[in-house]
Amino acid sequence: MRTSQYLLSTLKETPAHAEVVSHQLMLRAGLIRHLASGLYTWLPTGLKVLKKVENIVREEMERAGSIEVLMPMVQPSDLWEESGRWDDYGPELLRLNDRHQRPFVLGPTHEEVITKLVSNEVSSYKQLPMNLFQIQTKFRDEIRPRFGVMRGREFLMKDAYSFHSTDECLKQTYQVMFDAYCRIFERLGLDFRPVIADNGSIGGEGSHEFHVLADSGEDDIAFSDASDYAANIEKAEALAPSGERATPTQELNKVATPDAKTIESVANFLKIEANTTVKTLLVLGEAKDDEAAPIIALVVRGDHELNELKAEKLEGIASPLTFATDEQLVAATGANAGSIGPVNLNIRVIADRSAAHLADFVCGANEDGFHFIGANWERDVTTYEVADLRNVVAGDPSPCGQGNIVIKRGIEVGHIFQLGQKYAQAMNCGVLTESGKNQTLTMGCYGIGVSRIVAAAIEQNHDKYGIKWPEAIAPYQVAIVPMNMHKSARVQETAQNLYAQLQQAGIEVIFDDRKERPGVMFADHELMGTPKLLVVGERNLDNQQIELKDRITGEKSLIAIDSVMALFNK
Amino acid sequence: MRTSQYLLSTLKETPAHAEVVSHQLMLRAGLIRHLASGLYTWLPTGLKVLKKVENIVREEMERAGSIEVLMPMVQPSDLWEESGRWDDYGPELLRLNDRHQRPFVLGPTHEEVITKLVSNEVSSYKQLPMNLFQIQTKFRDEIRPRFGVMRGREFLMKDAYSFHSTDECLKQTYQVMFDAYCRIFERLGLDFRPVIADNGSIGGEGSHEFHVLADSGEDDIAFSDASDYAANIEKAEALAPSGERATPTQELNKVATPDAKTIESVANFLKIEANTTVKTLLVLGEAKDDEAAPIIALVVRGDHELNELKAEKLEGIASPLTFATDEQLVAATGANAGSIGPVNLNIRVIADRSAAHLADFVCGANEDGFHFIGANWERDVTTYEVADLRNVVAGDPSPCGQGNIVIKRGIEVGHIFQLGQKYAQAMNCGVLTESGKNQTLTMGCYGIGVSRIVAAAIEQNHDKYGIKWPEAIAPYQVAIVPMNMHKSARVQETAQNLYAQLQQAGIEVIFDDRKERPGVMFADHELMGTPKLLVVGERNLDNQQIELKDRITGEKSLIAIDSVMALFNK
Repeated sequence: MRTSQYLLSTLKETPAHAEVVSHQLMLRAGLIRHLASGLYTWLPTGLKVLKKVENIVREEMERAGSIEVLMPMVQPSDLWEESGRWDDYGPELLRLNDRHQRPFVLGPTHEEVITKLVSNEVSSYKQLPMNLFQIQTKFRDEIRPRFGVMRGREFLMKDAYSFHSTDECLKQTYQVMFDAYCRIFERLGLDFRPVIADNGSIGGEGSHEFHVLADSGEDDIAFSDASDYAANIEKAEALAPSGERATPTQELNKVATPDAKTIESVANFLKIEANTTVKTLLVLGEAKDDEAAPIIALVVRGDHELNELKAEKLEGIASPLTFATDEQLVAATGANAGSIGPVNLNIRVIADRSAAHLADFVCGANEDGFHFIGANWERDVTTYEVADLRNVVAGDPSPCGQGNIVIKRGIEVGHIFQLGQKYAQAMNCGVLTESGKNQTLTMGCYGIGVSRIVAAAIEQNHDKYGIKWPEAIAPYQVAIVPMNMHKSARVQETAQNLYAQLQQAGIEVIFDDRKERPGVMFADHELMGTPKLLVVGERNLDNQQIELKDRITGEKSLIAIDSVMALFNK
Repeated sequence: MRTSQYLLSTLKETPAHAEVVSHQLMLRAGLIRHLASGLYTWLPTGLKVLKKVENIVREEMERAGSIEVLMPMVQPSDLWEESGRWDDYGPELLRLNDRHQRPFVLGPTHEEVITKLVSNEVSSYKQLPMNLFQIQTKFRDEIRPRFGVMRGREFLMKDAYSFHSTDECLKQTYQVMFDAYCRIFERLGLDFRPVIADNGSIGGEGSHEFHVLADSGEDDIAFSDASDYAANIEKAEALAPSGERATPTQELNKVATPDAKTIESVANFLKIEANTTVKTLLVLGEAKDDEAAPIIALVVRGDHELNELKAEKLEGIASPLTFATDEQLVAATGANAGSIGPVNLNIRVIADRSAAHLADFVCGANEDGFHFIGANWERDVTTYEVADLRNVVAGDPSPCGQGNIVIKRGIEVGHIFQLGQKYAQAMNCGVLTESGKNQTLTMGCYGIGVSRIVAAAIEQNHDKYGIKWPEAIAPYQVAIVPMNMHKSARVQETAQNLYAQLQQAGIEVIFDDRKERPGVMFADHELMGTPKLLVVGERNLDNQQIELKDRITGEKSLIAIDSVMALFNK
């Protein structure tokens, strides 16, 4: 491609509204343009990257035995009513009426359509397992679209769905998909981790997220420093501290802690460490019949954070987790927030494993402006339960049993999920088994955010000059940058010959034939992240040489003109 | 692909609701499935065809210098307000609101988005011409979607838009696109014609449709039998008959024609040919100020049809063409429909060239139940104009000057169009010219109905057994059909070896490994239209042979097993 015949559209300035670096660079390098909130046009350079990602995803899905289909973006509402999601899905589901006032949705995902399809087309266990995928445009009406294509409204997704008559078969296909996902992200050249994820009500390791590691990621991931273990921080188990709890050595003692309403201020005031205190959070339990919901106390160590997902899964706790109001706090404990603790409390108390391991700890005295010191479980809190209630923190022992926890940030780009029978049951999707019985199918679903991968790759691979594409998804493999071509016939001829040669060999090459200063050209190609730059200049031509600049390493070297093709094994 | 691991989904019965053969065969051969009115899921076999069409279109667009982009399907309404189409576009434009009640549309086409993009990104004449295309899902809310993907609501389209600072430049790119379209349809293996089309107000040959010829086509196309000339019948010029008009030989004579209200009944009653009569149609002229619209008489020969498009383009005639009401007929002529003629008429009369060439003709006498015989222009109709007012018919001299007109039916699958400045002007899309002046751009647009091509290819290429795919878009190049494989180890081994060999050579092969009767397998593969069938049977293996069935010619032949690869030049 010649830049003179191309829509290059690079920008010198960083657009003010772009908050994250990938969004900034995608605008500056001419990959995308904003059309409306969460809606982007892919410019030629961006689309080349998107297609490369798409093709790698397609190849590996096909290699793993998944078969491609294409479902409509516009879906009739009755399918969503059948699955129950017409009511359950929030305003992210864009609903619309056609000219005859029939209700439709813009598909944010396709469980309903595919389950109905398989229900119609597959009737015998002999046709199973069946694994179908599509690479298709989705729409989710995000309340606050941001970060460019990272959280856009219209986006390209690969979604696959597998159908099985037994759980064993689902687990096999799940593993095949897990392996295919690893190959995909390896081929894309990204530093990624499969991460144990929350899978709602199914339990077990029935769900993994695939994260591209990047400091700017929205998710915290807990790794073991000694094994492959990785889990979303919401999901990582916090083990109980090892060893027995220490024996109480102090008496329970109420002390005045005027104005100390946070763990930090209490610790400062009492000149102790936060990890010898506990904080007590009051939440609602499940209401029985017409009674008011009971209040339940959750206790975590002062330096730990409550994991709301873990809490709301405990029996008897309202889901979604609901914190008690100020009035409810006072009614249940006699004190306001900041002075509450588990001692002498007449409600159900659940202590996190680490909090429950403390002896001689500090807690609120359930009297405004007072705390207990020397508090001890059993002696001072006679009835309590123990559970995993907190987020893991760096240094915690890994729940896999090997090494300690390290926390890194990641961008979720894939998610595989053992769905079970939720959709198959609701939509009556079954087959006749070998023994002639009707069997409801069990399903897996497997998503990859194709457009999001482009942004995530940039978050992970960039420097102050621009994007540093992994080879496999660079829009162009090499750029030819001639110096003052319009003043030197020799430079022009060499550059044009190189261009013709590379093109003929099927190498994706961009030839900068603009009448621009060298500095402008270098800046554009570094911004666009082309892995190799071939700089053709008068000076080096005397020796039949050109300069090779490596975008990743930054190295410059002089190479013989006739060795260029060898760079590409040609 | 093994059929046992595939979603074959062929149907024995023709679905009752499918009206045209391509819709029937696409359902029966397992190419598509109906989701809702005008919405279809592409099954694996159909998607393979769709992708092949898409790839050929993409390759030829790129070869012609067009650059691929991807625009959102959901578009903000303000762009449509800017172009004026928010008001002009009918209910085919699906309008919707997002969660914040902001208005959007589902894009039926992308002139607005691309013009705004180019307006922002292109500022200098040096960047021109610019030709951008996308292959993207469109939505048109057809009032009555039908014929499957032939007239669906959600469909795949290639739309390209070119931008120019001069009309000459637009014409050059238009020719490049014309040539690219010819290559595309040639490569697809379809019998097609580029056809001069109506291009609204621009005039000249500024628009061509590309039609796939098929008896079931919705459009009539007029060809020359001696040149490349082809035009949509609405657009083909009807020349004046050659030679001078004959001299009048008869007196004007009023005869009673009781109950004869059609040309046919008048001709029968008078025992004359319809081509010696004229019919007179009254339409409204353009109203001036507050006056009622004038009534105008259009006269065509009795055996010809009025071409409404030609009529409404004539000066002084209301557009869209509006026929006079029964009351207006009587008020203007004194007679009802069926007895009206141009003689003694006090209104403007426009005669078609062929009607105006008649002498001694028959026409209504403007008195119910009476006709004139022996009517003659000038002598009996003193004031009249002559224009091209009718559709061409088979046998007419071709307007290109060579040969005569033949009429065939076609399916429109492409349309190229010199748009002019309509969008660029409305959306303020211009560049600085070499002399530093601001110049509004002129545009071309170029569409191809990618999903419609699949249906059109079937309309053109099928027989009673199913589809006969052109080689270039067949989902599979070859099918291996083993006879009773599960009873013969020799058949199984040969079939599996062939499958492995063909796969390895990169040939798209489908291996029918189902436990089905030979008849069922043959029927499925003939239905699906695979060009070559390799039938592996016990009997022929004694001679190291298999049977080759050609789906297009129907020929069967025995070939040596080791000559199979040569069929594919491998």
